[in-house]
Amino acid sequence: MTILFYSEADSAEPWREAFARELPHIAFRVWPDAGPLESVRYALVWNPPRGLLARLPNLKAILALGAGVDPIPTDPTLPKGVPLLRLVDVGFPAQMAEYAIYAVLKFQRRMGELDDLQRRAQWNQLDPFFARDFPVGVMGLGVIGKVVAQRLSAVGYAVAGWARGPKTIENVEVYSARGRLKDFLARSRVVVNALPLTPQTENILDAAAFATMPRGGYVVNIGRGAHLVDRDLIDALDSGQLAGAMLDVFREEPLPSTHPFWRHPKIVVTPHIAAPTIASEVQAQVIDNIRRLERGEPPVGLVDPSRGY
Amino acid sequence: MTILFYSEADSAEPWREAFARELPHIAFRVWPDAGPLESVRYALVWNPPRGLLARLPNLKAILALGAGVDPIPTDPTLPKGVPLLRLVDVGFPAQMAEYAIYAVLKFQRRMGELDDLQRRAQWNQLDPFFARDFPVGVMGLGVIGKVVAQRLSAVGYAVAGWARGPKTIENVEVYSARGRLKDFLARSRVVVNALPLTPQTENILDAAAFATMPRGGYVVNIGRGAHLVDRDLIDALDSGQLAGAMLDVFREEPLPSTHPFWRHPKIVVTPHIAAPTIASEVQAQVIDNIRRLERGEPPVGLVDPSRGY
Repeated sequence: MTILFYSEADSAEPWREAFARELPHIAFRVWPDAGPLESVRYALVWNPPRGLLARLPNLKAILALGAGVDPIPTDPTLPKGVPLLRLVDVGFPAQMAEYAIYAVLKFQRRMGELDDLQRRAQWNQLDPFFARDFPVGVMGLGVIGKVVAQRLSAVGYAVAGWARGPKTIENVEVYSARGRLKDFLARSRVVVNALPLTPQTENILDAAAFATMPRGGYVVNIGRGAHLVDRDLIDALDSGQLAGAMLDVFREEPLPSTHPFWRHPKIVVTPHIAAPTIASEVQAQVIDNIRRLERGEPPVGLVDPSRGY
Repeated sequence: MTILFYSEADSAEPWREAFARELPHIAFRVWPDAGPLESVRYALVWNPPRGLLARLPNLKAILALGAGVDPIPTDPTLPKGVPLLRLVDVGFPAQMAEYAIYAVLKFQRRMGELDDLQRRAQWNQLDPFFARDFPVGVMGLGVIGKVVAQRLSAVGYAVAGWARGPKTIENVEVYSARGRLKDFLARSRVVVNALPLTPQTENILDAAAFATMPRGGYVVNIGRGAHLVDRDLIDALDSGQLAGAMLDVFREEPLPSTHPFWRHPKIVVTPHIAAPTIASEVQAQVIDNIRRLERGEPPVGLVDPSRGY
């Protein structure tokens, strides 16, 4: 029995050690050194190449090394009926909230402009912006978006959320269903994207969305790079329709050094660090999930591949 | 009857208009064009020169244009028995909390280092720091410090507060009395100073305080410049005992362009903007206070000059 590891973003060694210690009866192999493919019972993967999972005839579960599982559900060869599991609440929501709060405060308190003034040793108080003029909209009210919205509200912002279905979250005004997206965008000076990536949400942050937001608005992307139309964002910033953006996720990662986002004066780029995983907690969750599967118990973090989350 | 205005930081014109509209029976004069000094019944001042207030024989109240009143109580010629009033809660606590949360998140999430990496278009995720390793200590638990502490707690930090007397604040561990300062500093990875300036608190952020904090700690000053010993801070940063500081207040303001704080790589300088006053709310509070005094009712924001707050 084998667990097959595939990730270009995570080191395999800590996992090899954890499995040797916790589940010594399962062989740990790192792609492409997979051994006999029919022996692979579990795949522990992040961003696996298309077709890889289809080559494993006795696969019992796919464990994604992330809170999001894309692009796995869009692989047309994805084996049907094999449970797909994602990481659940290993500190992700709180970390995402930290990032979002920092981003909103940075824009509302004009901190980027003050950084520029410090570089010139210039004492200039600027006209203040007030929190009451910065209604924040959180796109996606899943486990992550809900905590992000609640904590932004606790900092003092008027927070609304946009979700597919109706929800009730204290102190958060919920806009649900596609038809209410325009109203949601129109009232949000800052939009924080925490959506899962699905065919319905891809490219949702586009020229039409930016034009619906109030002039001088801001975008924070902690969802996926493919939610955002890169060119449309740059155009909206250059025209003044948007005043700034803070981006943690990109269509291509690492973001190529020639990409215009790096040097755009109104864009803050961070290298996909909004929710750094706490390795020990992730390991504990994956190992616990494999133990559950081995005992025939329901695992944690089951994803519906047709929805993508 | 005259109200005399003195401030080098605030424009007199909006005040002249507000008084003409709301209290037209009181003449509004701006120092040094004070008219007969015996006509001055109210002084509306920020940072007045020593001796100015003593020259007003019929002064009924001193209204400070700030939440802090220093250096007024330390003026040895301050007329005794004249009520000294400060601004109370015109959005100050919430704004101070915004600033403090931003500063703590900036350090905990290594955002300054990520800014530097962006300038070089370098994708480097750095080793993450986690909120659970960043206990925050708030010095001063008055109206401002209490809100700062509570909101930092809501963001997810373990928050302690240090105050002169005992207090109870939900989710905040309170250290009270001078003897507990060492314990408070020793458990605080980040210290946020929100103390009033008094002879007892001047220079409280000194080499001894920094040495008591955990190595690699951070200081955020939203109190007064004279709380901090400038040279000691630079030494603690240069030795690595402290890892960073974000300062909004300084011994001399504007901070002279030659001051080493401006260019120190571990110091973030902001130009006394942590709590920008909402002009309309400040005006409403001052005018309401003068109406109360005219009617013989107790005013809001009475300061005990012997304590200084």
